[in-house]
Amino acid sequence: MPILNKDMTLCISLSARPSNIGTRFHNYLYEELGLNYIYKAFAPVDLADAIAGVRGLGIRGCAVSMPYKEDVIALVDEMDASAQAIDSVNTIVNDNGRLRAYNTDYTAVRRLLAQHDISPELSVLVRGSGGMAKAVTAALRDAGFRNGTIVARNEVTGQALAALYGYAWAPRVGALTADLLVNVTPRGMAPDEARLSFRTETIAAALVVFDVVASPSETQLIRVARAAGKPVITGAEVVALQAEEQFVLYTGIRPTPDQIQRAAAFSRD
Amino acid sequence: MPILNKDMTLCISLSARPSNIGTRFHNYLYEELGLNYIYKAFAPVDLADAIAGVRGLGIRGCAVSMPYKEDVIALVDEMDASAQAIDSVNTIVNDNGRLRAYNTDYTAVRRLLAQHDISPELSVLVRGSGGMAKAVTAALRDAGFRNGTIVARNEVTGQALAALYGYAWAPRVGALTADLLVNVTPRGMAPDEARLSFRTETIAAALVVFDVVASPSETQLIRVARAAGKPVITGAEVVALQAEEQFVLYTGIRPTPDQIQRAAAFSRD
Repeated sequence: MPILNKDMTLCISLSARPSNIGTRFHNYLYEELGLNYIYKAFAPVDLADAIAGVRGLGIRGCAVSMPYKEDVIALVDEMDASAQAIDSVNTIVNDNGRLRAYNTDYTAVRRLLAQHDISPELSVLVRGSGGMAKAVTAALRDAGFRNGTIVARNEVTGQALAALYGYAWAPRVGALTADLLVNVTPRGMAPDEARLSFRTETIAAALVVFDVVASPSETQLIRVARAAGKPVITGAEVVALQAEEQFVLYTGIRPTPDQIQRAAAFSRD
Repeated sequence: MPILNKDMTLCISLSARPSNIGTRFHNYLYEELGLNYIYKAFAPVDLADAIAGVRGLGIRGCAVSMPYKEDVIALVDEMDASAQAIDSVNTIVNDNGRLRAYNTDYTAVRRLLAQHDISPELSVLVRGSGGMAKAVTAALRDAGFRNGTIVARNEVTGQALAALYGYAWAPRVGALTADLLVNVTPRGMAPDEARLSFRTETIAAALVVFDVVASPSETQLIRVARAAGKPVITGAEVVALQAEEQFVLYTGIRPTPDQIQRAAAFSRD
């Protein structure tokens, strides 16, 4: 039976449609590291009341998912640079009643670009214009990537995103090529999805392919890129690294890569 | 490791100085009965924020302890008769966003008087004038006990409690006797406490002795009463029964007496 006690530190997530991934990832590491923490996902009834609860119950950490990432800004006390960079919050840390908001998606993308040694001299095509495309584009821009194009059929969101970070915009890939291709659309999530965000010729002309889709992590785009001999960055890496960053923010402890890998595998079971 | 999942129903307690008793009692029964529930004690930072959190996070049940039992009244939607009887709340049930307040101490005392077959014709001495004395006195009055005396050195609270329920008041036991003696003072909680709330002669003249002190449950008063051959009601019975009532309110399931006994034993470990 779960050995629970009154002194456990609670961390939670707020999402309209919670998954079990965060709950399993964090609890696995609490157990592994012998931390007196507990984690549980919530679908809040009311966001402001839920954040009041974070304060009132002294909940240490709070992951924020769709559709609360922007609404929650008005409810916190401080914005970390990662959240400020994209006006979007996915993590709240409660330090003795002061709520500080972060965006670990942004942090994770920045760290992955560095870990994979991707030179900011590379030209970039970012496919997509949603919330995660904003995190990716801001991370690219802040990492020094200057030559970028947002490819999005939605002209309004596509042009807005491009303008925000000084990138070009195109409604479709067409004959465009770039060194770094980034897919930030949901394409690849459906198991029978045959369409790729980039044509095979575009992939052939690229140096690196980055697919933010995490489930499955071996998307058709990643498979095609691997087959073409291109280095890849997968969505699973983003998910694991952003969760790791959350874990570090909540506990002050950075697990080993092996622990993170096992927690990530457990969370997908 | 704790197998937690996103769908678990959370119940909590709010207390300035939480103990592990509720956390262990409820989690033991969740496990025993295979319920997808989880329970954790909290020391709230702010009561109104914590209750907002109960609403916002959809927390199913909330035990309320000192010093929040009265302040919480303004924060709930409905008062059950048990809480209304003494203007004091120790349990909140969240039914799809509507918070209904109960007092299971009151309910437990009423049920124990019935279970032990204590006739309302008996005269009563209630020693004490705090919050629990109010629950006990209201339960006695509502169970039909008419001939009662509140014994409390504090004249203000003692007289107020007596007046509220139509009982007499006395500053000390002195030569008073009664059929039913009830201790609702903390006397007996300290292991080296030699003073009894009632003299041996008063105990000898009584028919039943009821000590609300639960920890230890075998108080000096209970031991003396047992030695004198008197039937007793212990504070452990109150604690177990009020917790059982909370459990039923949260889950809709009444555990067997054996399950309750094991959970209560586990909670005291």
